[in-house]
Amino acid sequence: MKKNNFVPVISLLTDFGLADPYVGIMKGVIVSICPYARIIDLCHQVRPQNISQAAFMIASCPGFFPPHTVHVAVVDPGVGSKRAIVALKTNSGIYLAPDNGILSFVLGAEPDCQAWEVKNSDFFLSPLSRTFHGRDIFAPVAARLASGMDMDSLGPQIDPGALIRIDPAKGPQIDKKGVLSGLIIYVDGFGNLITDITGSDLDNFLCDPSELVIKAGKEIIYGLSPSYSTADKGKVLAIMGSARRLEISVNHGNAAEILGLGEQDPVFVSAAGSGNTIL
Amino acid sequence: MKKNNFVPVISLLTDFGLADPYVGIMKGVIVSICPYARIIDLCHQVRPQNISQAAFMIASCPGFFPPHTVHVAVVDPGVGSKRAIVALKTNSGIYLAPDNGILSFVLGAEPDCQAWEVKNSDFFLSPLSRTFHGRDIFAPVAARLASGMDMDSLGPQIDPGALIRIDPAKGPQIDKKGVLSGLIIYVDGFGNLITDITGSDLDNFLCDPSELVIKAGKEIIYGLSPSYSTADKGKVLAIMGSARRLEISVNHGNAAEILGLGEQDPVFVSAAGSGNTIL
Amino acid sequence: MKKNNFVPVISLLTDFGLADPYVGIMKGVIVSICPYARIIDLCHQVRPQNISQAAFMIASCPGFFPPHTVHVAVVDPGVGSKRAIVALKTNSGIYLAPDNGILSFVLGAEPDCQAWEVKNSDFFLSPLSRTFHGRDIFAPVAARLASGMDMDSLGPQIDPGALIRIDPAKGPQIDKKGVLSGLIIYVDGFGNLITDITGSDLDNFLCDPSELVIKAGKEIIYGLSPSYSTADKGKVLAIMGSARRLEISVNHGNAAEILGLGEQDPVFVSAAGSGNTIL
Repeated sequence: MKKNNFVPVISLLTDFGLADPYVGIMKGVIVSICPYARIIDLCHQVRPQNISQAAFMIASCPGFFPPHTVHVAVVDPGVGSKRAIVALKTNSGIYLAPDNGILSFVLGAEPDCQAWEVKNSDFFLSPLSRTFHGRDIFAPVAARLASGMDMDSLGPQIDPGALIRIDPAKGPQIDKKGVLSGLIIYVDGFGNLITDITGSDLDNFLCDPSELVIKAGKEIIYGLSPSYSTADKGKVLAIMGSARRLEISVNHGNAAEILGLGEQDPVFVSAAGSGNTIL
Repeated sequence: MKKNNFVPVISLLTDFGLADPYVGIMKGVIVSICPYARIIDLCHQVRPQNISQAAFMIASCPGFFPPHTVHVAVVDPGVGSKRAIVALKTNSGIYLAPDNGILSFVLGAEPDCQAWEVKNSDFFLSPLSRTFHGRDIFAPVAARLASGMDMDSLGPQIDPGALIRIDPAKGPQIDKKGVLSGLIIYVDGFGNLITDITGSDLDNFLCDPSELVIKAGKEIIYGLSPSYSTADKGKVLAIMGSARRLEISVNHGNAAEILGLGEQDPVFVSAAGSGNTIL
Repeated sequence: MKKNNFVPVISLLTDFGLADPYVGIMKGVIVSICPYARIIDLCHQVRPQNISQAAFMIASCPGFFPPHTVHVAVVDPGVGSKRAIVALKTNSGIYLAPDNGILSFVLGAEPDCQAWEVKNSDFFLSPLSRTFHGRDIFAPVAARLASGMDMDSLGPQIDPGALIRIDPAKGPQIDKKGVLSGLIIYVDGFGNLITDITGSDLDNFLCDPSELVIKAGKEIIYGLSPSYSTADKGKVLAIMGSARRLEISVNHGNAAEILGLGEQDPVFVSAAGSGNTIL
């Protein structure tokens, strides 16, 4: 086990909720192996088995955590089956997750990466349960990776291109008429509707942000707002959010409830005066 | 950056909830800058944009955290507008918050303090979002303050007396007849009704606690109880709570639900036999 | 105060919820005394005053935390009354709790232990509230124990056999016909029904797991499943869970809701073909 000079950092993302001791027990296993690890809860309230939601959340980490962080994602409907567990190393960190699509957006954003299959059971707890791999596999493996263990100890290196990817990770599409169609990929606790449309997607329109026309459900929004508070209370607005993606929001209100929209619903963008109208 | 000999401590208070990765991302930014910081969640379930509730919560810290703690409060309806961000240094710690009244009770309890406006964008993340200053301003600034950065690096020193204060921070009033009227300033998760009335307010009655008469809604309570368990199950009682303020509680019950009272509702106190009856 | 060579670890289990600053304030007290303590939240959403649920949760720690961990349980309906506070030292850690039955399952699993009554108020905060012993007693005492303070400093050593135990800790019973009857002792957030029946209880049947017959409410289950995913979606199954106890679950469903069962409800087990049928 090679030593690094960093304070080890581990982030945890699960759908375990906080009503049970499951997350706490994972942390007990981690500090048993890596006593100095800083453990950061990314979120434990992913909706049960919602891989797409977890994929968005873990993709919001790059740039905001130390690059030696081990990010652990346990949203794992296939626990106990033969699904693989994988470790991905990118410039932004190490990602440990079941191979079920959780890493789709990370893979999309960081093509320069390496992947391993986690097979070496020397690092698993024993006896190994069939129902709680968060405790028995993910926690002890993450603790060792945070301690500086070599990635090759985990198991065979694999092709990152072969990892499972979820559909929304394909990204927004432009049709022949120049209308961009994207998807709502995440609804946050405030009801903000976060889409898969990035700033560079919008740059392709070659127009001022005030000239964009956005359609979400039955709502037509003219132009991007610079901040929530520039819109009147209760008004639907479009904004480049903190995830650097197009968001539909309501100032002092819940856009998801007001518009009746949710994850996987489409959002359309065109340029005013382009003739490629979505109206 | 001067070094201190303390383990750096940062407490976090937000209305972000725990269903999203927002709090976790703030912590990632903090440990990226101050790897040894102990980060303590004070609470993340402040009701959205409820400044008064946040003001009570942060005022419950003094005396119970190391005096070099950096307390961060991000309940910030004005994010993206021109509201100021301030840092307050008192004998109990450093407080970092929007200038919107959150620090009202701390300012009231600790008049011996200094304040700065947080303006130096060298310490902000770049690019700076308009929607997530918790990540882009509060987290990196708190991490540097916890690391021992000089307060003067933040921006100009300002008059603490000019900071915004919320109305409930005025404290209880005594009328001509000697009746004390206070407000419920916080309802906790058990339904306890915590008022702005302190022990020293009650000392002014110059009578035994058993001779106080308290009126909350339609309920008249005679005398203070020494503990919850001295009252019968289901009985409404008045008690000097752990925040050293007068609380209305129900033994094994929810006072807020039973009395139909909430934050901002009045509570009256008089002394039995004083003729200044509230009955 | 003797020094140990370990990183101090403290786990916290309460029914305080996360909507108030109470847990955060306990942590402030802990880091004020023991700045290097790793504090792990076991759970703060024990149902209010549900001692049996807390007893199960804390008993899920042994084996998964460092053996010098101080486990603190504050589910304490008797706060402010004369109930004792006790510290228990076992091979798996130190347990600090009110003497109200929370330690029942730990005591049952680890008979080789020593106990002390926590009486020395030198280690309590002053003034001592009557309503928040988590902050005023449990936190400062745990911080000192984690720092390596001698157990004898707490107060007199007492007989562990005299500690209060809850009824479900008696364990499952076998009747004359060879039918094993146990209790559901914990329902987790996914609706899994965890019983007090252990693997060794089932070993007594001297038959293959596939030959066991389990009755829970009106449901009859034939054989144990090796994992959730071996059953069809929506199907009720019995499994040896991660707590190494018999669990009734539904693949991709909520067993508690589907079967209408909860904590304290009975579960019966017999061997197929034994004639000791529960059908």
